Amino acid sequence: MITPTDKTLIPHIQDKIDNLNKPKGSLGRLESLALQVCLIQQSLSPSLHHPCHILFGADHGIEREGVSFSPREVTWQQLINYGKGGGGVNMFCRQHNFQLRVVDMGTDYDFDHDRYPHIIDRKIAYGTRNFLHEAAMSEAELHRAFEVGVEQVDACHSEGCNVISFGEMGIANTSPSSVFMHLMLDIPLDKCVGAGSGLGAEGVRHKYKVLKAAVDNYRATLPHALTPEYTIRYFAGFEMAAAIGAMLRAAEHRMIILVDGFIMTACMLCASRLDEGVMDYAVFGHCGDEGGHQLMLQRMGAEPLLHLGLRLGEGTGAICAYPILQSAVGMINEMDNFAHAEITKYF
Amino acid sequence: MITPTDKTLIPHIQDKIDNLNKPKGSLGRLESLALQVCLIQQSLSPSLHHPCHILFGADHGIEREGVSFSPREVTWQQLINYGKGGGGVNMFCRQHNFQLRVVDMGTDYDFDHDRYPHIIDRKIAYGTRNFLHEAAMSEAELHRAFEVGVEQVDACHSEGCNVISFGEMGIANTSPSSVFMHLMLDIPLDKCVGAGSGLGAEGVRHKYKVLKAAVDNYRATLPHALTPEYTIRYFAGFEMAAAIGAMLRAAEHRMIILVDGFIMTACMLCASRLDEGVMDYAVFGHCGDEGGHQLMLQRMGAEPLLHLGLRLGEGTGAICAYPILQSAVGMINEMDNFAHAEITKYF
Repeated sequence: MITPTDKTLIPHIQDKIDNLNKPKGSLGRLESLALQVCLIQQSLSPSLHHPCHILFGADHGIEREGVSFSPREVTWQQLINYGKGGGGVNMFCRQHNFQLRVVDMGTDYDFDHDRYPHIIDRKIAYGTRNFLHEAAMSEAELHRAFEVGVEQVDACHSEGCNVISFGEMGIANTSPSSVFMHLMLDIPLDKCVGAGSGLGAEGVRHKYKVLKAAVDNYRATLPHALTPEYTIRYFAGFEMAAAIGAMLRAAEHRMIILVDGFIMTACMLCASRLDEGVMDYAVFGHCGDEGGHQLMLQRMGAEPLLHLGLRLGEGTGAICAYPILQSAVGMINEMDNFAHAEITKYF
Repeated sequence: MITPTDKTLIPHIQDKIDNLNKPKGSLGRLESLALQVCLIQQSLSPSLHHPCHILFGADHGIEREGVSFSPREVTWQQLINYGKGGGGVNMFCRQHNFQLRVVDMGTDYDFDHDRYPHIIDRKIAYGTRNFLHEAAMSEAELHRAFEVGVEQVDACHSEGCNVISFGEMGIANTSPSSVFMHLMLDIPLDKCVGAGSGLGAEGVRHKYKVLKAAVDNYRATLPHALTPEYTIRYFAGFEMAAAIGAMLRAAEHRMIILVDGFIMTACMLCASRLDEGVMDYAVFGHCGDEGGHQLMLQRMGAEPLLHLGLRLGEGTGAICAYPILQSAVGMINEMDNFAHAEITKYF
């Protein structure tokens, strides 16, 4: 169970922030971020420890419908590549001292695990089923994916981690993300579908048609009692389900959750439908260019820290925002107050 | 003399960026930033060394007209406070390992320099004259301020610094900044005037009236040959003139110049009127909430890295953006290319 943050602390936190020696409100988003972090940690002197990034990888049945610009094999190739340290996510993790865990949730490939020991093997299947025609995964598979997310977060937490981010590698995973945005926020599907890793206008039109047909088929198969869990298992990839389970667990541990771009935002949306308390722990790192991401964030009431046009995935937009989080924590811990600084309080 | 960057290198840099193992363009603003840094350093493998932040402080004659919410003495109080390490700028400098230099260019106070050895004494006068009625400084004072900027940048450069930012402390200095924006970009004055450190609607109206009258008086005194230099010495503070000289010198040294918010953007605007080549070296760190800052940036063709609602000044928005600069440099130096990573090139 997630405990929502205790909001009765807000006046005390705000009072501390307002007495730092600066014009009131002049550190903008850093101030609201510091407030959130204090609430999460229930402390006026928050701290960040042992940041971890968990990157889940898996393939998608829907990829067979030609909805992605990038070929399927890129999923497993990139998982291998992260072990060489040359991926975008590697660079960001080194820069900000994040521990990186790479988890194979269901790629369409048999890894040589002696050769690639960095890949944590939790493969559920060689990709999900094609949600154009059927649910992407079974109930058992969904719960297994949730469990892996929980297990991975527990491992980080036991090492002292209190700030965590998640990333994904799974060719075609903007497709289920668009569907979640459409179904869970009641936003017209055409506003939810974008170019992914590089589709042209014709490709986006095709992707839209496939997703429209998939949603129609899904509606026809709806059970009498629709639950968010059913929607998730119908469309999600294993890497996304793992991230959803991981987010819920991180919130149970009262960890700060740095949320990446379009796909991880969609996962946070799914997680919030299972337990809305998770949103108290979510810090949205980045708003990207993928069609609809900004709209999804707005509708979730989320205010992302960065707008840098990143659309690499892997969780890079979350890690890239980490120094802003550090600045917010530094602000509330390290800045003097007016009285001690002997400054005329100028507000 | 500033040497504009050699643009013939662009295809080579772009080729390197496009062959990093990520969808083309997927690191967004980091890619254009990496391109600029490569051009500045004329290298495909740029590097950042010994970042420095120079904070110039001075008082403004125009403050006597009640154009600022904060009282005049905050200027000298804050200059002292930076020595205690408790200012916003101190926190950011520590976080990102910037060397901080605090320079008194003309505060209205006699510091005890034995007690506050961190304040570099380059005082020109106890504040500028009131530009409502006369030019803020003489030609000799302007050139002295430029010289101090040059001297301070030379000191950083000689220590191996190749990336530098500037900040300001000077109560009322949004006023001259608004005037520069108005006069140099031909933007209506009412779009250039904002709340500064905390004016209400009535305060902003008063500030506008004062600045309107000052500009009218200035126009009446115009010499036959108007130069940007004349405009600068008529309105600028000593801290701003020092920053302008410093920016020009930093560009001569081919250093990366991280530009802060409203006031430092106005100084970069002034610098670009003296030598437009300086803009090649300018990386705009942050777009704040001060009225007109976004418009000024747009009209200068500048694309700021962060939008965090900061309006503290001191150069904090520039330093806060430093990790994004590091990410861009890390991207081009550390990410694998497709061939080496054995990834299907997916674009």
